[in-house]
Amino acid sequence: MKDPGKKVGEVAVGRRRFLKTAVTLTGLAIAQSAVPTLRAEAQETPKAPEDPTKVPGALPTPYGRRSAFERAERLPRGQISLTPHQDLHGIITPSALHFERHHNGVPLIDPASHKLLVHGLVERPMVFTTEDLKRFPSVSRIAFIECSGNSFSEWAGPPGQTVQQTHGLMSTSEWTGVALATVLRECGVKPEATWMLAEGSDSAAMTRSIPLAPMLNEAILAYAQNGEPLRPEQGYPLRLLLPGWEGNTNIKWLRRLELGVAPWMTREETSHYTDLMPDGTARQFTFVMEAKSVITSPSGGQRIKPGFVEVRGLAWSGRGRVTRVEVSADGGRTWRTAQLQEPALPKCHTRFTFAWRWTGEEAILQSRCTDETGYVQPTRRALIGVRGANSVYHFNAVQSWKIATDGSVSNVHV
Amino acid sequence: MKDPGKKVGEVAVGRRRFLKTAVTLTGLAIAQSAVPTLRAEAQETPKAPEDPTKVPGALPTPYGRRSAFERAERLPRGQISLTPHQDLHGIITPSALHFERHHNGVPLIDPASHKLLVHGLVERPMVFTTEDLKRFPSVSRIAFIECSGNSFSEWAGPPGQTVQQTHGLMSTSEWTGVALATVLRECGVKPEATWMLAEGSDSAAMTRSIPLAPMLNEAILAYAQNGEPLRPEQGYPLRLLLPGWEGNTNIKWLRRLELGVAPWMTREETSHYTDLMPDGTARQFTFVMEAKSVITSPSGGQRIKPGFVEVRGLAWSGRGRVTRVEVSADGGRTWRTAQLQEPALPKCHTRFTFAWRWTGEEAILQSRCTDETGYVQPTRRALIGVRGANSVYHFNAVQSWKIATDGSVSNVHV
Repeated sequence: MKDPGKKVGEVAVGRRRFLKTAVTLTGLAIAQSAVPTLRAEAQETPKAPEDPTKVPGALPTPYGRRSAFERAERLPRGQISLTPHQDLHGIITPSALHFERHHNGVPLIDPASHKLLVHGLVERPMVFTTEDLKRFPSVSRIAFIECSGNSFSEWAGPPGQTVQQTHGLMSTSEWTGVALATVLRECGVKPEATWMLAEGSDSAAMTRSIPLAPMLNEAILAYAQNGEPLRPEQGYPLRLLLPGWEGNTNIKWLRRLELGVAPWMTREETSHYTDLMPDGTARQFTFVMEAKSVITSPSGGQRIKPGFVEVRGLAWSGRGRVTRVEVSADGGRTWRTAQLQEPALPKCHTRFTFAWRWTGEEAILQSRCTDETGYVQPTRRALIGVRGANSVYHFNAVQSWKIATDGSVSNVHV
Repeated sequence: MKDPGKKVGEVAVGRRRFLKTAVTLTGLAIAQSAVPTLRAEAQETPKAPEDPTKVPGALPTPYGRRSAFERAERLPRGQISLTPHQDLHGIITPSALHFERHHNGVPLIDPASHKLLVHGLVERPMVFTTEDLKRFPSVSRIAFIECSGNSFSEWAGPPGQTVQQTHGLMSTSEWTGVALATVLRECGVKPEATWMLAEGSDSAAMTRSIPLAPMLNEAILAYAQNGEPLRPEQGYPLRLLLPGWEGNTNIKWLRRLELGVAPWMTREETSHYTDLMPDGTARQFTFVMEAKSVITSPSGGQRIKPGFVEVRGLAWSGRGRVTRVEVSADGGRTWRTAQLQEPALPKCHTRFTFAWRWTGEEAILQSRCTDETGYVQPTRRALIGVRGANSVYHFNAVQSWKIATDGSVSNVHV
């Protein structure tokens, strides 16, 4: 066949049949997002040749770029930016779209002059360059990082319109570095040391206290992300990775680890990153991000048509593996088990899918995650029943997307 | 601590101890690569502030970039470019550094006008847009793609100097798309269909014949790579993914699938992509990439120092999972088992590490992969003993890096 353009016309009847067949796919048509997204960089859309087989293509390049036709973007808001999960596939977040949370901007760091000091309750205080750290035994791990403020607007509103707005403060990468335990062994951590202070080189000098016992076998001093060096906004050239723990404890631009016997009660762990309970007390040191899930498609701002719709989403738990995800189309009255995509790794986003047929009637789509500890993601009502609605952090309740009879999808609190 | 600069000085003794201690890491110091790499884009290195904590950082951005201090690049050579495995970590290849192989350049394709025709021995010939295909049930998979010409210079030379030159025609991504089986079911593939022609929209109209039976349950029509749409040089907006099969069969810029009863004997599968045997006959249809491994560090062009050296590399098999990797430091006389990094997925790069102590004497470093079928990666001598040295493709023998007494690492054929 020399001219596929002609063939396309010849088999147009097949195309119509595809669109009409009752067997599978007549249903879903996700419209352009109804919610405008910020476009920071105006970009010309190129004019592609009508028949690309008639024009020699471009030569290889040293460092590739995405197609100029693609425009998915993080949504910057002050010192954060949100990952566009409605546009993404699989579990790996492209590094260029990994969410951001800084406390005073992304520092410009020359890796040749960056150093990590390890001191306090150690036999041998030491300073390491990033090159020093790369010589130690290395470890890689695919893991999510979720800001403890992810879904904060779901506590009391105003509710986010899109899944980027409600769940954009989480992303997944393959991280590589040296195990914290290896570096502490090198420095000779003293037996009485039970806490560690981690400090960043940013102009907020972001600082958190980390209890050693639960993280000593999991923490990584990471220098790489998705194969290449960390991106600047992810802590280049060095960050702490505490798989499953709230994002801000994964100190970026890491310059100092101090070993001690008690938490330091730093600014960020006293004035921020505590959870105000209904009785006026504050929960402190809520490190673990509990089991959670969200449907990324269909999601807020999209529009579907009656018929087959594949429900797609992400599930994760800071306590280990996701063992089950269920989907409800009736606001939580009945649930059916979704399919988990391989790999389903501990403390990592797990992609789920669920084959659904939308009848055209109003529906409330929800997903619910169970992790390997048996913990089941709570409803919003149950979560607020225990925690009240004063909190900013650690919202992990079931998310509800309402499908209106016109197929439009919106965020609702049920 | 307010001034880590001062502390650094105060604990300099610790730094010296680190550099001298016999316990762990005195050995390895990989010097700058002795082999010059091509720099296609001259880039200014920025001047970073001496103390980044004193300068407010940069605000979030819609689509991030790597640090301007990082310069790892693909090595472009005509219609190929090579992944810099000596610079990479883990198993995910950054999309910007995924190897390239085009047959007449990267076409510029407007996704809105791109179509896939499925015809031939099907009940219902159909044309699909990429948007149509995204509505089908989706599947994601982390898998390597290896050009059958990867390591071609190892057959008869001149041998590549670096691992980028010898093994740069392979990369790993998370791919997402629709199962080929789903689309063929929609079109009603006829029972007599046993082969499928796949054709690209590039100006080579790259075309290969694919036997249906072995790939029907694995092939994916992929529209996404590492979470976002395929990169242009990886087939944007649509490619065929045949996990474990030689790269060129994973047709990029996919525009046509024709079902038939025999191979089409296209240009690329007759004049190219066959293997010339010693008796003058050519092996045809050698789809599977057999088990293989390579040490990425230390590797050609690097330099090490006596003491601890972590040997790092990649192993993979087109037939399934890697079950074992062994490392030899004496040119294959003795072997020891390396550690496999999780996840170790089928038809996917698996990262291995091996703790080694270099005594300062000449050494030949090798790795050897065994896959789940029990196949063991052959020596170069054994491979050439069977296949001769006329071949260009499907070199999967053990790779040898010679460590000279000065610590320099070079490629040798032993």
